[in-house]
Amino acid sequence: MAIQNSTTTNGTAATNGVNGASTNGVKAGPAPLDASKLVMTLAEKLKPLPEPESLVFGQTQTDHMLIVNYDPVKGWGAPEIKPYAPLVLDPMSSCFQYCPNVFEGMKAYVGPDGEPRLFRAERNMARLARSAERVALPPFDTSALLTLLKEFVHTEKRWIPSLQGYSLYLRPTIIGTRPALGVSASDSACLYVVASPAGPYFKGGSRAISLLAVNENVRAWPGGTGGHKLGLNYAPGFKPQKDAADRGYDQILWLIGDRVTEAGAMNAFVVVRRDDGDLDVHTPNLDGTILPGVTRSSVLSLLNAHTSSSLLLPTLPKTLKIHTHEHPITMPELKAWSDQGKLLEVFGVGTAVIVAGVGRIGYSGWGEELVLPENEGGLGPVGKGLFDMLTEIQAGRVEFEGWCVPVV
Amino acid sequence: MAIQNSTTTNGTAATNGVNGASTNGVKAGPAPLDASKLVMTLAEKLKPLPEPESLVFGQTQTDHMLIVNYDPVKGWGAPEIKPYAPLVLDPMSSCFQYCPNVFEGMKAYVGPDGEPRLFRAERNMARLARSAERVALPPFDTSALLTLLKEFVHTEKRWIPSLQGYSLYLRPTIIGTRPALGVSASDSACLYVVASPAGPYFKGGSRAISLLAVNENVRAWPGGTGGHKLGLNYAPGFKPQKDAADRGYDQILWLIGDRVTEAGAMNAFVVVRRDDGDLDVHTPNLDGTILPGVTRSSVLSLLNAHTSSSLLLPTLPKTLKIHTHEHPITMPELKAWSDQGKLLEVFGVGTAVIVAGVGRIGYSGWGEELVLPENEGGLGPVGKGLFDMLTEIQAGRVEFEGWCVPVV
Repeated sequence: MAIQNSTTTNGTAATNGVNGASTNGVKAGPAPLDASKLVMTLAEKLKPLPEPESLVFGQTQTDHMLIVNYDPVKGWGAPEIKPYAPLVLDPMSSCFQYCPNVFEGMKAYVGPDGEPRLFRAERNMARLARSAERVALPPFDTSALLTLLKEFVHTEKRWIPSLQGYSLYLRPTIIGTRPALGVSASDSACLYVVASPAGPYFKGGSRAISLLAVNENVRAWPGGTGGHKLGLNYAPGFKPQKDAADRGYDQILWLIGDRVTEAGAMNAFVVVRRDDGDLDVHTPNLDGTILPGVTRSSVLSLLNAHTSSSLLLPTLPKTLKIHTHEHPITMPELKAWSDQGKLLEVFGVGTAVIVAGVGRIGYSGWGEELVLPENEGGLGPVGKGLFDMLTEIQAGRVEFEGWCVPVV
Repeated sequence: MAIQNSTTTNGTAATNGVNGASTNGVKAGPAPLDASKLVMTLAEKLKPLPEPESLVFGQTQTDHMLIVNYDPVKGWGAPEIKPYAPLVLDPMSSCFQYCPNVFEGMKAYVGPDGEPRLFRAERNMARLARSAERVALPPFDTSALLTLLKEFVHTEKRWIPSLQGYSLYLRPTIIGTRPALGVSASDSACLYVVASPAGPYFKGGSRAISLLAVNENVRAWPGGTGGHKLGLNYAPGFKPQKDAADRGYDQILWLIGDRVTEAGAMNAFVVVRRDDGDLDVHTPNLDGTILPGVTRSSVLSLLNAHTSSSLLLPTLPKTLKIHTHEHPITMPELKAWSDQGKLLEVFGVGTAVIVAGVGRIGYSGWGEELVLPENEGGLGPVGKGLFDMLTEIQAGRVEFEGWCVPVV
């Protein structure tokens, strides 16, 4: 990839792209996202790196950002990696007024070879494109964005702590920038990526979290947007989350009626002992109310890999069979499994937390809290096995199906 | 109200406010919104006023904006009326990432006395406060904001076209500005008001609009946020709206199952002839999925006023009795009323459009479109009577219950 300084290539490049525009300058549509147009403007002075132990999730900005604007006529402009800077936007912009804003959460890791790595990044690119389409933001070439993202990771490589459990959290974002108040799709947009170095999600060692199951507020709904990663899915949870915290719970277990959807901003998993000694692992199916999480998908793959012996989870007996189920889970089922002594583990998974064990669940439909079996560090054998294996793969110490490869 | 130039009052004013903070400087909480701290910085050069006929809704910015920031420690700062300018925000800001953004739509009118007027503005202030609370934005003193808003209207008075059917559209907005990626409530915020001169919603005369009834995408649901005026309620409608436009419909009739909720961004009304010659007017009840519209409330009041003869709608017989009903309306009911020849009018109401008549409704559940009786200008006698009376009250030519009073 060619990197230029302060100038962009012009002309035909914009008409050879994904939009299938003609090459003779006639009827050329909006230009596609083109990584070869990247302009690099590096910071004159780099920030001092913070002590890794002092990091709080998502509160540290790195030196640079990746940014590219979409104009309704010209299409995607020249992408730029430039010093981290505020956005300057008309107060009428669609992003403030009607919230056509989408994002991704990803992490870059440093492998034993010292090279930065990305974990299943093509899945985040594809999901971002689906999210953008859902709120009528302009389409973009996902492979071009991945190329740009890799360049950005190389630029910010010094920000990836080389300590175990640390990474550089990446936040690709697209916001609608149409500066007008009419209620309609934003025909202009700003795509940017910012980064923040991140340590283990739980300070002072992993612990089990508590969940308050809630159905008077509903996160997502059939025909709604819960299956897409939209910014607008999150603000409605702020007040319920505060209320849950006031009642002594870490996160909300979101329900529709008595059906489990997500845990906080994580996908939910439930481990149940079978009468034949095998394990059932249940997670809600992707019915449009559930975010199709990259960690969720990876967890299902790793559980199946253990059962097929293609990759063994270190905390579990080699011969243990785990049966994964993507289907609805209800609160009465959870209670019955618990009453029968079969409910072994509940955990949430996501890019930020990886795997978080659940210790107790409060629910107005129950007389008392559901208490899960206690485990050191908050994670049972299945959750701990997944956490350890995912972090080994992410750190480049275990290779599995090309999930985490050096950024080249 | 004292207006200062470039300086703010300081000290005890901030501790005498709605938060009930002590006055001796000990344990003072965040400062409340305080209109007496207003700083005025007027534009050195005013923009030329556009030709009223050239106005497109929400695309013209006036000379100034009202803006005030909330800091988690200091509370609300000094409000400022200043030249219209872009917002400058960290790319990690909550408004882009998680969308805790709320707004209001209001209009200022010029009365026969040349004085600017606001229509039921205290209702917008109260709704904005409820919206802010729903997404955990900081609270504010609604009467202080109304005082500031009136000052802003006076500042921008020259932008209110004195032509019939014209007004100055006002857009109070509050956005979350916490510059961090952790998924939690925004503890900082920016409240601002921008304005845009507006002409009649329909260019070239009023006409009936077409609606496509949709339930595969759902605007709002029980336990969701449809009953609050949040920016995030709107972006999910952009793609369905585009799809509806591609199929030749102006707006979407949003359903939950077969139940009517809203029409585009308007509250929906249905007029049905009764066997006794009276009229039934139905609108969905405020069950949390329906925006409690100011125009909706005003329409119900005006219909009841006609029946009680306290204010007669000019297009209707004086003795006509209209029975208003706030309750669920289903698609089969609409079809049955239509088949029986009783369905006289369907219309949407809102601040921007006032009253918009519906000419036809498409629905996958029906073999053919439902076609409403035709009326000149698209509005039947009830819709036209409401439109005319609302615009008379808003223009200050008819006084009714103090709804539209000069801004003093």
